[in-house]
Amino acid sequence: MTQSEAIPRFPTSIGTSDPDRITLLGQDLAADLMGKVGFGELALWLVTQQRPTPAQVRVFEAVLVALADHGLTPTALAARLTFLSAPDSVQGAVAAGLLGGGSRFLGVTEDTGRFLADALAQAGDPRPADDASWDAIALAAVQRARADGKFVPGLGHPVHKVTDPRTPVLIQIARAEGLYGAHLRLFEAIGRIHPQVLGRTLPLNGAGTCGAALADLGLPADLLRGFALLARTAGLLGHIAEEMRRPIGMDVYLAVDHNVDYLMPDSAPNP
Amino acid sequence: MTQSEAIPRFPTSIGTSDPDRITLLGQDLAADLMGKVGFGELALWLVTQQRPTPAQVRVFEAVLVALADHGLTPTALAARLTFLSAPDSVQGAVAAGLLGGGSRFLGVTEDTGRFLADALAQAGDPRPADDASWDAIALAAVQRARADGKFVPGLGHPVHKVTDPRTPVLIQIARAEGLYGAHLRLFEAIGRIHPQVLGRTLPLNGAGTCGAALADLGLPADLLRGFALLARTAGLLGHIAEEMRRPIGMDVYLAVDHNVDYLMPDSAPNP
Amino acid sequence: MTQSEAIPRFPTSIGTSDPDRITLLGQDLAADLMGKVGFGELALWLVTQQRPTPAQVRVFEAVLVALADHGLTPTALAARLTFLSAPDSVQGAVAAGLLGGGSRFLGVTEDTGRFLADALAQAGDPRPADDASWDAIALAAVQRARADGKFVPGLGHPVHKVTDPRTPVLIQIARAEGLYGAHLRLFEAIGRIHPQVLGRTLPLNGAGTCGAALADLGLPADLLRGFALLARTAGLLGHIAEEMRRPIGMDVYLAVDHNVDYLMPDSAPNP
Amino acid sequence: MTQSEAIPRFPTSIGTSDPDRITLLGQDLAADLMGKVGFGELALWLVTQQRPTPAQVRVFEAVLVALADHGLTPTALAARLTFLSAPDSVQGAVAAGLLGGGSRFLGVTEDTGRFLADALAQAGDPRPADDASWDAIALAAVQRARADGKFVPGLGHPVHKVTDPRTPVLIQIARAEGLYGAHLRLFEAIGRIHPQVLGRTLPLNGAGTCGAALADLGLPADLLRGFALLARTAGLLGHIAEEMRRPIGMDVYLAVDHNVDYLMPDSAPNP
Repeated sequence: MTQSEAIPRFPTSIGTSDPDRITLLGQDLAADLMGKVGFGELALWLVTQQRPTPAQVRVFEAVLVALADHGLTPTALAARLTFLSAPDSVQGAVAAGLLGGGSRFLGVTEDTGRFLADALAQAGDPRPADDASWDAIALAAVQRARADGKFVPGLGHPVHKVTDPRTPVLIQIARAEGLYGAHLRLFEAIGRIHPQVLGRTLPLNGAGTCGAALADLGLPADLLRGFALLARTAGLLGHIAEEMRRPIGMDVYLAVDHNVDYLMPDSAPNP
Repeated sequence: MTQSEAIPRFPTSIGTSDPDRITLLGQDLAADLMGKVGFGELALWLVTQQRPTPAQVRVFEAVLVALADHGLTPTALAARLTFLSAPDSVQGAVAAGLLGGGSRFLGVTEDTGRFLADALAQAGDPRPADDASWDAIALAAVQRARADGKFVPGLGHPVHKVTDPRTPVLIQIARAEGLYGAHLRLFEAIGRIHPQVLGRTLPLNGAGTCGAALADLGLPADLLRGFALLARTAGLLGHIAEEMRRPIGMDVYLAVDHNVDYLMPDSAPNP
Repeated sequence: MTQSEAIPRFPTSIGTSDPDRITLLGQDLAADLMGKVGFGELALWLVTQQRPTPAQVRVFEAVLVALADHGLTPTALAARLTFLSAPDSVQGAVAAGLLGGGSRFLGVTEDTGRFLADALAQAGDPRPADDASWDAIALAAVQRARADGKFVPGLGHPVHKVTDPRTPVLIQIARAEGLYGAHLRLFEAIGRIHPQVLGRTLPLNGAGTCGAALADLGLPADLLRGFALLARTAGLLGHIAEEMRRPIGMDVYLAVDHNVDYLMPDSAPNP
Repeated sequence: MTQSEAIPRFPTSIGTSDPDRITLLGQDLAADLMGKVGFGELALWLVTQQRPTPAQVRVFEAVLVALADHGLTPTALAARLTFLSAPDSVQGAVAAGLLGGGSRFLGVTEDTGRFLADALAQAGDPRPADDASWDAIALAAVQRARADGKFVPGLGHPVHKVTDPRTPVLIQIARAEGLYGAHLRLFEAIGRIHPQVLGRTLPLNGAGTCGAALADLGLPADLLRGFALLARTAGLLGHIAEEMRRPIGMDVYLAVDHNVDYLMPDSAPNP
């Protein structure tokens, strides 16, 4: 048994407590936050460690509302099937649902924010003043993506082929709150110019618009997926609560089970 | 290849969409919810499928704010260590943090709601009108728990030995909103009478008070852990964002690694 | 900035390393384990911290093989749907599949081991010598469960109504290896006597037999679910690999999506 | 309520069952696999859907043994802290540990396999016959990585500065089994030539060697992380079992908690 080594200090600005007081973000949780701060407001504050303005909170909550649910998606089904198998562990069902929050379905918000931020960094200062100049930046960014064989994130939607109804509403909210900034502006320019590069007209989708709006709140791209996960947690709880009341998990399983084709490994046509 | 069997229909009241419209909870998401409904309000609505009143939303958000974070807890550390190991997968770090949301640390809210609901069911109708009668119900419930060798949930706190500062504030908010009901009332009665059964005076803790307040919103015990998980998701995002900016995960690991005593398996004093 | 407090030592007997040597379970990993110890053997050793005998390894691996996969179960579907959504994070898909390893589907192995261990503890020493005496212990245990309104774990199977083909094979392997002990013996007695209590004849299922066989290896009930999870990890990797080559996740999602009945919240018949 | 649409068939070659028989990989599970096939062998078979040879199994199990545990790593700590918080959910603790299996700590095996496969594809056929020619391929690959500003995976280790003891042993096992192929050969060439590009001599680490050995078994890079996860599951079960017997989770938490520096958000030096 040797002497313990000294360990480093662990700095945090999130929370601490003593017998009489709980401190969160430097505030007195009970006296200053509970009943006075909304949950969306607190979530944004926790991530940035800066108190958001009411305008920022309104845009932020509109984004969370826009992203909370998309019906019986693969991630909602994963949560419901996990709840079916392990009803004693609600946290496991929520976690299983969140684990689908990766590149394909939940990544658009983050990818769009990053794409726009990169394009703005590339364009440099000062920011242009008229639409024509924004269109030029957009065109350069889309052409660069095309040349690199990359997708332009935030374009297109499997259901909303012409207009994603969330897009104009979110842009209008951002404008009304004075938070329509460079990222949303560039995103709209991409909406105008992409047909001349891609050869077809795609809608600006809601998840991408959310990424642009969050970026205009000053949030870095690395954090955007986290907000999509927070929004989705509310949706997953809705699905789990509905599964408790009117379950479909067993029927999903049986629908698959009754339609399995068992192929002997040899005959399996693996390309 | 055989004929596919018909599969059942899958009912849901959460979300659906068509090319022009996204429906959530029977509402038009873009026209009626975005920018008009707060995130906490939507989360409660998603779970109950009934539109909450402003009073319910205020109590509900106060609960979420109360539960969002408790500093560098084991679950916050699990999320930060997971982010250290897999920084490419924010969803994995959030999920790892939520998976600690089990019986010991996050279960108090649910356990208290269930304990109170059971005690009220046992006491039957009509609900008493004076404190003395509430104290009698509380006494019976605490004595029953004691006789069964069970803990009374919601009592005591490792840091707040005398008063948990969240408790009086949350009760006051519920009273102000007209939502101080049977569960909170019984919980306060337990606060008065438990010393005569347990032989010492413990504070009503904040997590337990949250359980009582949520139960007074009409939420069943099975859903309460889910709300604690939602609140904690915001706290975990705060920790992950702080870990991105000013990491401690590696230092936590090294603090352990530098202080390991490797014991040969034979000599390990396993009781 | 205050002085760091001393921290405790962290004992472990699992692994450690220095520049020239990796120690695992007190052995030299490279010199003594790699190429000399099978993976199943190592897994059992890691959990018990005692080197297993070849006979124990054979029974243990037979159990893992028996539990590795059950086709397109809810947990396999959860893993595949998670992989569909987040193909960049194989660990998330595996984790989602394991999170269904709770009370309902994967808990039988653990529940049976615990039920048998409790019944043996209740019966006390010495262990009986003839089948009639074992039947008496089994009868008491099943009657006690029945009186308490509890299920007897390990009985019945949705597909194998008469005999679970794994059961006789595993019992035979345990006998052949000299590891047919009190738990398996009691489980077989339950197979004989339960019809007179339950009024119908159910097969001893494979998952329950695995629990009994693991208990006869001296493994405590708290660890049994862990082995079921290890076995299932192999099955889940098989499903994820097949999903990479010949995906069905999207079809599962679409099969649900095309058959959704969206019910307005008001009309939802929530009981 | 509309007519259900037909759903597609769901092909699988993994498992199926009928009342009398369980089929796994086209085999009779009870008659042909249990007691006759090791767990490592089954895991490899499940992933490839081709029965492995005894030589392949020996190399594969040596890899799993090499990767099973690395002591009190961040992922082991995440699993133990999750178990501390939610001891009722072993599956959650295992899942939390696996979720750290991302790019930084568990990704080396996969990254190395992919790097070597890409370099071999680039070099084309036929494969060279002498070390000098292998060195030329290795040199080109390392120079290309260097020019692209990328790391060469599989080089270097924080503890084993000169030689990772697993590396020569695994190479020797592969040679003995006749499975020393192009990937291991190229990896050894990288070990010889990298100093002239990188300017310093680094050891071939064990995780990278495992990736090369698995690639020489014909396994594609996309599957390699999965095997690291399987190996790690055994290690995590060892940690959770040790945590049950001789817990350290609470001490890890307290070691952090007692050494927190709470910084007011304003004063936090976020770079």
